[in-house]
Amino acid sequence: MCELLGMSANVPTDICFSFKGLRERGGKTGPHKDGWGVAFYQGKGVSTFKDANPSYQSEIARLISDYPIKSTAVVAHIRQANSGGVGLENTHPFTRTLWGRYWTYAHNGQLQGFETLPVGQHYVVGQTDSEHAFCYLLNALEQQFPVAPLDMKLAFDHLASLCPALQQLGVFNLLISDGDYLLAYCSTKLHWITRRAPFGVALLSDMDVDIDFAKETTEKDVVTIIATLPLTCNEQWQEMRSGQAQLFRAGEPQ
Amino acid sequence: MCELLGMSANVPTDICFSFKGLRERGGKTGPHKDGWGVAFYQGKGVSTFKDANPSYQSEIARLISDYPIKSTAVVAHIRQANSGGVGLENTHPFTRTLWGRYWTYAHNGQLQGFETLPVGQHYVVGQTDSEHAFCYLLNALEQQFPVAPLDMKLAFDHLASLCPALQQLGVFNLLISDGDYLLAYCSTKLHWITRRAPFGVALLSDMDVDIDFAKETTEKDVVTIIATLPLTCNEQWQEMRSGQAQLFRAGEPQ
Repeated sequence: MCELLGMSANVPTDICFSFKGLRERGGKTGPHKDGWGVAFYQGKGVSTFKDANPSYQSEIARLISDYPIKSTAVVAHIRQANSGGVGLENTHPFTRTLWGRYWTYAHNGQLQGFETLPVGQHYVVGQTDSEHAFCYLLNALEQQFPVAPLDMKLAFDHLASLCPALQQLGVFNLLISDGDYLLAYCSTKLHWITRRAPFGVALLSDMDVDIDFAKETTEKDVVTIIATLPLTCNEQWQEMRSGQAQLFRAGEPQ
Repeated sequence: MCELLGMSANVPTDICFSFKGLRERGGKTGPHKDGWGVAFYQGKGVSTFKDANPSYQSEIARLISDYPIKSTAVVAHIRQANSGGVGLENTHPFTRTLWGRYWTYAHNGQLQGFETLPVGQHYVVGQTDSEHAFCYLLNALEQQFPVAPLDMKLAFDHLASLCPALQQLGVFNLLISDGDYLLAYCSTKLHWITRRAPFGVALLSDMDVDIDFAKETTEKDVVTIIATLPLTCNEQWQEMRSGQAQLFRAGEPQ
């Protein structure tokens, strides 16, 4: 399977601490050695770093662990391949445009019978069930809203309504964002935590690293982290239920 | 204005040496300090690193100068903003999908009256003339070929046929690739060089760095570099004529 990591924040925030923990699971403390990727939104723009090599050994992943790239929405993924070979075209997250926005998506799980899901003009590039399901979701969005809805929350509500049917095809843990909203859907495993003042010290589960968020933040900062499994060992993460969708915006659960 | 850098190679090759030279021009030896980006193709997949900060000061750009990311097609850009503010959504190269392929595009120049160019469903995300022209080209491709042509060279020939009209709107130096072909179009300034055996030593123009390609390559390697201005001072670069299109594939001019 794979692991997901997402962030939604009300001020540009780096994800170094959380990514450092996730990176360990990409071949060292976890088996997810078949590539990794992370997309950072800044305004309407997005930059996606991907590598088909294990994150634990990747120099690019090391840089992202250490170098603060400030963003208000992040979607990251480490891969243990099941459907589709190891290669950049099968490495998450996937990014596409719709309605003049960049949509970024990462999936943890495995789907059966995905090949018949209609994708319209949103052709699949690689060979994964994951990318196929992404193209299906974008096509379904475009069918429902030929032009962008005035309230983008309606688009995310529609996306959430499509997830239970995908879950019926297997395992479908999802992160999807347009850089403003971030939707998480839990099929089997997904956790989140919202950090806000008063901030405290957090300890990573996967390595002996801690951070005092009080020194890194202002009192107004609100930052939500979503991860397959909790990344810290001394904080209370929310465990999502199977079939539960949770939308975030500017760090706040919606 | 901006500077372009592209690579087409018959074996996965890194672009560290050339990018090192380009990076200097992003705020040190050149004025192109308004962001930079580079897209690396591996098979059908692409990873695009972008940053709205000057490449000369960017830690990510430093990594790309030093860390060999092997690729057969690269499109890179350093930006001096004219149309559209400084920000990630206006940072080249731009990537979109068409016919189940990732298309990557970078532009050097400035266009007048670009707002009326039709883009169909290929909506623009940012505010640049460059991205608008890219969306126009993709829409025109899709109009010409509702399904992908069996011979993808036909698509690039069609792209090349559209460039002179864009050049009429101002300055339009272009790099565009689907990961297999790479098309260069020269409006005012573009140079290229094909390196093949016997390989020699190359010296960067922008800093005191040289490389002995004979030590880095095999006899069968063919690598073409395309750049706004020659990046080395001891090699003979081909200067493109205004209005000239040149297609490359696997390192070879087509």
